Amino acid sequence: MRDKQFMIDCGEGTQIRMRQMGIRTNRLGHIFISHLHGDHVFGLIGLISSFGMLNRTADLHIHAAADLEKILQPQLDFFCEGIPFKVIFQIINPKVYDKIFEDRSVSVYSIPLKHRVPTCGFLFEEKPRDRHIIREMIDFYKIPTWRIPKIKQGEDFINEEGELIKNELLTTPPEPPKRYAYCSDTAYSEKIIPFIEGVDCLYHEATFMNDELKRSKDTQHSTAEQAATIGLKANVKKLIIGHYSARYVNKNGLLQEAKSVFDKTILGEDMTVYEI
Amino acid sequence: MRDKQFMIDCGEGTQIRMRQMGIRTNRLGHIFISHLHGDHVFGLIGLISSFGMLNRTADLHIHAAADLEKILQPQLDFFCEGIPFKVIFQIINPKVYDKIFEDRSVSVYSIPLKHRVPTCGFLFEEKPRDRHIIREMIDFYKIPTWRIPKIKQGEDFINEEGELIKNELLTTPPEPPKRYAYCSDTAYSEKIIPFIEGVDCLYHEATFMNDELKRSKDTQHSTAEQAATIGLKANVKKLIIGHYSARYVNKNGLLQEAKSVFDKTILGEDMTVYEI
Repeated sequence: MRDKQFMIDCGEGTQIRMRQMGIRTNRLGHIFISHLHGDHVFGLIGLISSFGMLNRTADLHIHAAADLEKILQPQLDFFCEGIPFKVIFQIINPKVYDKIFEDRSVSVYSIPLKHRVPTCGFLFEEKPRDRHIIREMIDFYKIPTWRIPKIKQGEDFINEEGELIKNELLTTPPEPPKRYAYCSDTAYSEKIIPFIEGVDCLYHEATFMNDELKRSKDTQHSTAEQAATIGLKANVKKLIIGHYSARYVNKNGLLQEAKSVFDKTILGEDMTVYEI
Repeated sequence: MRDKQFMIDCGEGTQIRMRQMGIRTNRLGHIFISHLHGDHVFGLIGLISSFGMLNRTADLHIHAAADLEKILQPQLDFFCEGIPFKVIFQIINPKVYDKIFEDRSVSVYSIPLKHRVPTCGFLFEEKPRDRHIIREMIDFYKIPTWRIPKIKQGEDFINEEGELIKNELLTTPPEPPKRYAYCSDTAYSEKIIPFIEGVDCLYHEATFMNDELKRSKDTQHSTAEQAATIGLKANVKKLIIGHYSARYVNKNGLLQEAKSVFDKTILGEDMTVYEI
């Protein structure tokens, strides 16, 4: 997003998959961990260790519940002594909706989820981009360079004769900011809807089909139909489901159950890139 | 070996590879860890955690230097609370040749290696099998059933007339016991030769080719040629090389350099089964 990489969760083998896919990590500065179950964190130590061997120097920020540092730091001390970069733990409180990261172009928010351990999803929100200058009009009105930044932000221009030139004559609107929400792992919870309303893309877990509704409740996971219901009620533009139970070798049933509720559902698959 | 599974080292993604290959783990009771570098241990926590989800009940023994327990136990406490089996740490002293495991049919020994941290290889040695009974001869000499176990172990038989029947008439020899040695990670060290003399199969690391001889010394790894020299001098029946540096995309050069010294060299490759 905006020339930066963000990683969400890091299960065992993440670095191996990234190498298989030729994904470089030189723009990865922030990793967000939804909750402290093994399938979401066991890949961290290997990833960090390999960054050390590759002589990474940029700080690596890990946003997670407080316990992660307690678990990971002893491993870092033992296996990653002397690595040439800092691992910085940023503590999240998964129980609240909160802005947990911000830079010039992106904000990230935590979304409280409902799972067996404290868990949060993440909302990635682009900040509005500058408007696009219409070069010919800038030349025509002889607008000095130093005024351009303000005009990009929407200001009108008043020339030496005191004539007001409306911004809409000088610029075209930017692409609308994109919003992406990741919600895993979680039981069905309508409380998340206000936070993800209208996002460009929602990833929502769909561990089970309807045949395992009881098990989905016991384990605090969602069915495909429930994920789709959230997508529908939150009026999202696109829903990607994932985190399927290993029992579903063929995932078509999951997709069908979701699509019966919300047609804009996509089956999330390993090693696949989804453009938002 | 003899209907049991042993695992040597457990890097990140081990459980994933095993699933890909359809390897079941119900006979895996003992894991041997050569040294505490990440690429040899980061897969343990995920493996154990998955065993817990699969409701394994049999004890799992991990043979390793003392520090492993210090590193792994806090992770087990956090991520694997309530798993239905015991993880038992068996402490190895990697600096000595020692019998570290034994049961009815197999012994395992530690082999001190030369690496940047305390490291040992492992020698797996079958115990001699029983001799094979020649059924017709047992019937012919009317040997009672209760004498069979001793005869399988090589005893002669004396019948009621006091006549001695030599064991060679009653049995054929068993298959000779197999011996397999694993030596990784290690710099070239002839000190290991007495321990691995004549083994049926030696796995020896071969991280580099001759072009990186200096680096192999600095990092305390071996070249393919050095691995082959050990194989030759120890008169092993078969040498498998492995643990190649990622710089060698094509591994043929490694094999050629090894074979120039010791022809019975095989290129160890991922996801491949080698019969000993």
